[in-house]
Amino acid sequence: MAALRWRDGLELLDQRVLPRQERWLAVTGVAAAIPLIRNLAVRGAPAIGLTAAYALAAEARRRPDPRHLVRAGRRLAAARPTAVNLPHAVDSVLSALTGVPAGELAGAALAAARRLHHEDADACLAIGRHGAAALPSGRLRVLTICNAGALATGGIGTALGVVRTLHAAGRLERLFAPETRPVFQGARLTAWEAMQDGLPVTLLPDGAAPGLLASGTVNAVVVGADRIAADGAVANKVGTLGLALAAHRFNVPFLAAAPVTTFDLECASGTDIPVEQRAGREVTHVGRRAMAPAGVAVYNPAFDITPPDLITALICERGVIEPVCAARVREVAG
Amino acid sequence: MAALRWRDGLELLDQRVLPRQERWLAVTGVAAAIPLIRNLAVRGAPAIGLTAAYALAAEARRRPDPRHLVRAGRRLAAARPTAVNLPHAVDSVLSALTGVPAGELAGAALAAARRLHHEDADACLAIGRHGAAALPSGRLRVLTICNAGALATGGIGTALGVVRTLHAAGRLERLFAPETRPVFQGARLTAWEAMQDGLPVTLLPDGAAPGLLASGTVNAVVVGADRIAADGAVANKVGTLGLALAAHRFNVPFLAAAPVTTFDLECASGTDIPVEQRAGREVTHVGRRAMAPAGVAVYNPAFDITPPDLITALICERGVIEPVCAARVREVAG
Repeated sequence: MAALRWRDGLELLDQRVLPRQERWLAVTGVAAAIPLIRNLAVRGAPAIGLTAAYALAAEARRRPDPRHLVRAGRRLAAARPTAVNLPHAVDSVLSALTGVPAGELAGAALAAARRLHHEDADACLAIGRHGAAALPSGRLRVLTICNAGALATGGIGTALGVVRTLHAAGRLERLFAPETRPVFQGARLTAWEAMQDGLPVTLLPDGAAPGLLASGTVNAVVVGADRIAADGAVANKVGTLGLALAAHRFNVPFLAAAPVTTFDLECASGTDIPVEQRAGREVTHVGRRAMAPAGVAVYNPAFDITPPDLITALICERGVIEPVCAARVREVAG
Repeated sequence: MAALRWRDGLELLDQRVLPRQERWLAVTGVAAAIPLIRNLAVRGAPAIGLTAAYALAAEARRRPDPRHLVRAGRRLAAARPTAVNLPHAVDSVLSALTGVPAGELAGAALAAARRLHHEDADACLAIGRHGAAALPSGRLRVLTICNAGALATGGIGTALGVVRTLHAAGRLERLFAPETRPVFQGARLTAWEAMQDGLPVTLLPDGAAPGLLASGTVNAVVVGADRIAADGAVANKVGTLGLALAAHRFNVPFLAAAPVTTFDLECASGTDIPVEQRAGREVTHVGRRAMAPAGVAVYNPAFDITPPDLITALICERGVIEPVCAARVREVAG
């Protein structure tokens, strides 16, 4: 299972039609990649970073002109505002091209994208190990949100990397997946990913999670992140803050797992993270079916911000950040 | 706007097809009413109580036999487990039939149902007044959940009764309506009810509410209730607990509004309230469209329990219960 692959060109698994259909899309360059990132054909902070890196490699093959690639990179980096992995990946590929002759640009860009991909896969494995070790011992029932799995990264996932590591050690009793409105990434992607790998999974409406936590059924909440500020505040899929509040109230450990590329130490705190507002139609319609009266106003932020005091620990490939505070974030992820 | 009416027989506005279609269903008796209550053609604790009362009146006309009516009442009272208004309404109609001759049973049952209906409409008006007076002064932005409006009661609504009273006094800046998965009562019913009456309304995904509260945009959360225990714990639509936790964290007043018929002083606390578990298909499918992989396990409770310490005040037709504790509940609603 993977969100993307390079087979003589970039291909994306179209996440808009999962789980009904497994459709791979060939992406010929940057102009093709941007709408696919915006329309959520690919999503998840690490995966959109890697998509941008490979899209630049595809672009370098089409038009090996450094100035063109810098401009294309700038457009790519702005495709969605919240995940900092996107500009990080673009910067990383573009700096690998400095001083490279035109004839070697395509090869160098592809090598840079592949290196990022390998690093992300390794980061997921390390996050899985650190996260599983940081959780309470024994068999666990884990709640996540959205999809921070193989479909969101270049490896086994961040939050789901932790869950897969528990499962491999015989320690996963059950994964709870809130459906994650409005785009149903929990129902369509996480439940599918879990079932593909034989992980025991239970789907629930987003609003049911606090009651589930109150019941004592869940031993840990493990989520991904789209950007982590210097003080440890986490921007992640809308609904994460509600899970953190419930976990705090009912004494359930709350972990956010992400590679170092997701940390943005230039954002001092959560209020500095730009939160993407998305189209109302994602909320008012399911497919072509209207679920609300025509013309209703809609509030549809893609993310929310969870403050550090609600987070038990941050997990990255370098280890565990606990307690969550600026000093520990700088020490581990700086 | 109304959830039900008596026009030479009971008719229900079919809430399963709103807002696409306004379809009234004739209900010939108890056997017809039970599946309509279970399938959510009518919902909302006061409205299902009134539906049961009128269904008994219809049944009394069909078969004016006291023993039959008691048995039919017992089946009706068990149609859904959480809303205590349902057994309360059945008991109220049946006690009005004590000692009534067979030839007058139908008339007496209809008179009892109509009396309950008038009482509920009056209770909504009083709840609206008490609630609006208990809220901070000035123009307010109010968040609710699900639908506790005209479609859920025999009057202007409980939570939406408060909102309508604010609006009539020029004090409603905006109503925020979470869509309320899995059955979308916020999107399909509350947004529609608000727009029909010209109330400014904004729809949001359920998971977006904590972030909205964190932003300081909302001045008050006002919800309905399906059952209120003796200690003031509130069973209400799943997701209510999450709103209460967020309101508590961000210092937003959290009110639950319900008529005295929703109080159940025989339940000492929230853990004594039975919570209905509903079919997984409500979560996995939207209409006939599958949103999740086939065969996934589902957790789908219809309600959750909000503990008294998270509730600023309870509002009933007799006044304001604040602080929320057993002594004040007994004093006002006992």
